Amino acid sequence: MQTAKVAIVGFGTIGSGVARLILERGDRITRHAGRRIELARVVDTDLTRQRNVTLPESLLTSDLSEVLDDPDIVAAVELVGGSGIAREIVLKLLESGKDVVTANKALLAEHGPLLFDRARKLGRSIAFEAAVAGGIPIIAAIGESLAANQIESIHAILNGTSNFILTEMQHHGTEYAAAVAEAQRLGYAEADPSMDVNGTDAAQKLAILAQLAFGARVRWRDIPRIGIDTVDVADLRYAEELGYHVKLLAVAELVPEGLELHVSPTLVRRGTPLAEVRGAYNAVRVVGDAVGSVYFQGLGADQNPTASAVVADLIDTVVGRAAITFRALDLWSDRREALVATRDPTKIPGRFYLRFQVEDRAGVMAEIAGVLGQHDISIASLIQHEAEEGVNGSVPLVIMTHSTTEGAIAEALTRIEKLPFVHPGSIRLRVRD
Amino acid sequence: MQTAKVAIVGFGTIGSGVARLILERGDRITRHAGRRIELARVVDTDLTRQRNVTLPESLLTSDLSEVLDDPDIVAAVELVGGSGIAREIVLKLLESGKDVVTANKALLAEHGPLLFDRARKLGRSIAFEAAVAGGIPIIAAIGESLAANQIESIHAILNGTSNFILTEMQHHGTEYAAAVAEAQRLGYAEADPSMDVNGTDAAQKLAILAQLAFGARVRWRDIPRIGIDTVDVADLRYAEELGYHVKLLAVAELVPEGLELHVSPTLVRRGTPLAEVRGAYNAVRVVGDAVGSVYFQGLGADQNPTASAVVADLIDTVVGRAAITFRALDLWSDRREALVATRDPTKIPGRFYLRFQVEDRAGVMAEIAGVLGQHDISIASLIQHEAEEGVNGSVPLVIMTHSTTEGAIAEALTRIEKLPFVHPGSIRLRVRD
Repeated sequence: MQTAKVAIVGFGTIGSGVARLILERGDRITRHAGRRIELARVVDTDLTRQRNVTLPESLLTSDLSEVLDDPDIVAAVELVGGSGIAREIVLKLLESGKDVVTANKALLAEHGPLLFDRARKLGRSIAFEAAVAGGIPIIAAIGESLAANQIESIHAILNGTSNFILTEMQHHGTEYAAAVAEAQRLGYAEADPSMDVNGTDAAQKLAILAQLAFGARVRWRDIPRIGIDTVDVADLRYAEELGYHVKLLAVAELVPEGLELHVSPTLVRRGTPLAEVRGAYNAVRVVGDAVGSVYFQGLGADQNPTASAVVADLIDTVVGRAAITFRALDLWSDRREALVATRDPTKIPGRFYLRFQVEDRAGVMAEIAGVLGQHDISIASLIQHEAEEGVNGSVPLVIMTHSTTEGAIAEALTRIEKLPFVHPGSIRLRVRD
Repeated sequence: MQTAKVAIVGFGTIGSGVARLILERGDRITRHAGRRIELARVVDTDLTRQRNVTLPESLLTSDLSEVLDDPDIVAAVELVGGSGIAREIVLKLLESGKDVVTANKALLAEHGPLLFDRARKLGRSIAFEAAVAGGIPIIAAIGESLAANQIESIHAILNGTSNFILTEMQHHGTEYAAAVAEAQRLGYAEADPSMDVNGTDAAQKLAILAQLAFGARVRWRDIPRIGIDTVDVADLRYAEELGYHVKLLAVAELVPEGLELHVSPTLVRRGTPLAEVRGAYNAVRVVGDAVGSVYFQGLGADQNPTASAVVADLIDTVVGRAAITFRALDLWSDRREALVATRDPTKIPGRFYLRFQVEDRAGVMAEIAGVLGQHDISIASLIQHEAEEGVNGSVPLVIMTHSTTEGAIAEALTRIEKLPFVHPGSIRLRVRD
């Protein structure tokens, strides 16, 4: 029986999970790979921290060159994270002849074309199933299983941390800050959760999917994004009252004018699959012109689901499937034109949920409606409850609009926020019917 | 640019869909395959029937040898259906050096090991994504993406026709026969729908999944199965009253005693994803020990979703991925021992929904409960409504049991059906909580 030697670079939570699968599930992996996968080296700067896996003697090293200089190691997993040092590590791995597996969405969203071009030039492959949607095989699905389709749209919950926090707020009435703390306690959120809750993580993953599914050339920074850090538990209650749940949706939709991309907390109609996704789950709904709608749901960025995806990529890599896919699917490159243009974000249509905190006096509603009307925004429904005691005369005003554009809403909000009776901190969420 | 020539054998609904994708979506396929796929021959006994695709001159033939004898044709799609002539065709294709793609679950469920052994011996591959769950890439998911997992269970809606009929019955109160007629009118059911509605189709697909996910050696005929042809619209109403929807579930679950397999209309708790699948959709929930629960939903046996899966397999085949997967994944074979034993069906535990039509008089309930008690079956809940006018003194009696076994239920029902006040035609469905 053949043996393929592999290495792990970055021995944190995911790295430990990958090591454990390789060490403890060898038989199963051999059955799918037709050969043994041997963990030959684990590289990390921290050689002393306790992990929940025991490595055989002398496997752990802080010296990357022990991987680079070992010609028997055919593939390495980059789990360092971030887009700085990780980039250098991946380049060195490729240059020393290793195929690379990575779970690093920030790295790919930032430097994907550069790394992919380099790998192609060197005859190596990069596999990245674990970079998007953890345990959901969405990269394989879009890149291979749905290859006969023109993908028409992707609607996805890509950040498990945000979905966990929204679920806590919705089902237990937990305030945002307390829900974040609970997510941290359970290991779903980092000490600094800002990348998760401000939409960065979801935008990076959406950029990767847009590249793969549409051949778009997307910089994740150009994707308009709002995070759940703007959402109050009150918004979830109003949404519920209107028949919706709030989810952090990442959307890519192909229309005649180009590819529409955005990330926003979104009111999703109750009873639809995406609206009912709870806890740290991810979900992706893909529409293709032949296959119709395909829906996937699975755990997001947890240790084991991500490790499961990394090991599947390792198997793909050592058996040679990853190399074929990588060569054939020559999409992601600095040398290539985009297949589709991305649409000007201000032109992207949609319905919106708006919440203002306004003074409780006559004429307020008329004036706000007037501004909206001047921007051709018509009101679909409206909630204004009586003022609660002790909120010094101000009340929340919730407006659901008919379809308008991102640009019109932004302009109208700027004007409304300047009105003397409107308090700072208005909220704007998207609505999906 | 390289070109790979392929052929289609069987030019029915799916065959036309595949031909159309290859002919009309060439650019897209080329982008994913890194080469052109050329449709070189289409074989069918019927050369005159109208199809919804126009083939170039001289592509259509009734002579299979035009495929077998053309060394430039590297792969062929078998879409003849059934397990008789299709088997001979696949063997001939393999022997003439073609890789095979098939959507034929009956063929694989019946002759899988024989065909797979033959293909391995000849150095050829068989790809069969389209054989199970249409547009859902479940074969790739289990065989590749979840390869690091011990699969623990599969709960699936694998027959779109049955799900369409159940949805019609549930949401429009349509009687079974009328719902079947509607399914036939819309093209979801064959003129003879018995394989769909009696559980055969779902059992064949489950046998394929069990083989792939668990390394079981399963004959589909050995899988205990009940079809939706036993279900009355009244059962859907009672289920609703109890908090459930009825779905035709195919289940494979690994327990210490072995692999439990069964197909049955099943009461699934409302609000869970599987319970809410409507229309001609399929859905699969897979639990793996690393990935946790992954859920897939997509269109079942429709023309385009199935054609989408076939063309993905064709791409996999011509780029060489299918060959690697087929070689590495040496599971399905007459030469190999099963990795797990299947469990004696009579021992499979579960809760059950029972409906009897009984005479409306004193002592009936006591006697039925007595028989159940003698088989250690305890009653969880019970519905008995007052007799409707004109049902000549008989009433339905619905019982939900606590957990018992398939064997105990079967024995108890045999005895209960012999009681003088019980009418023929009692109903037994499984319950999943």
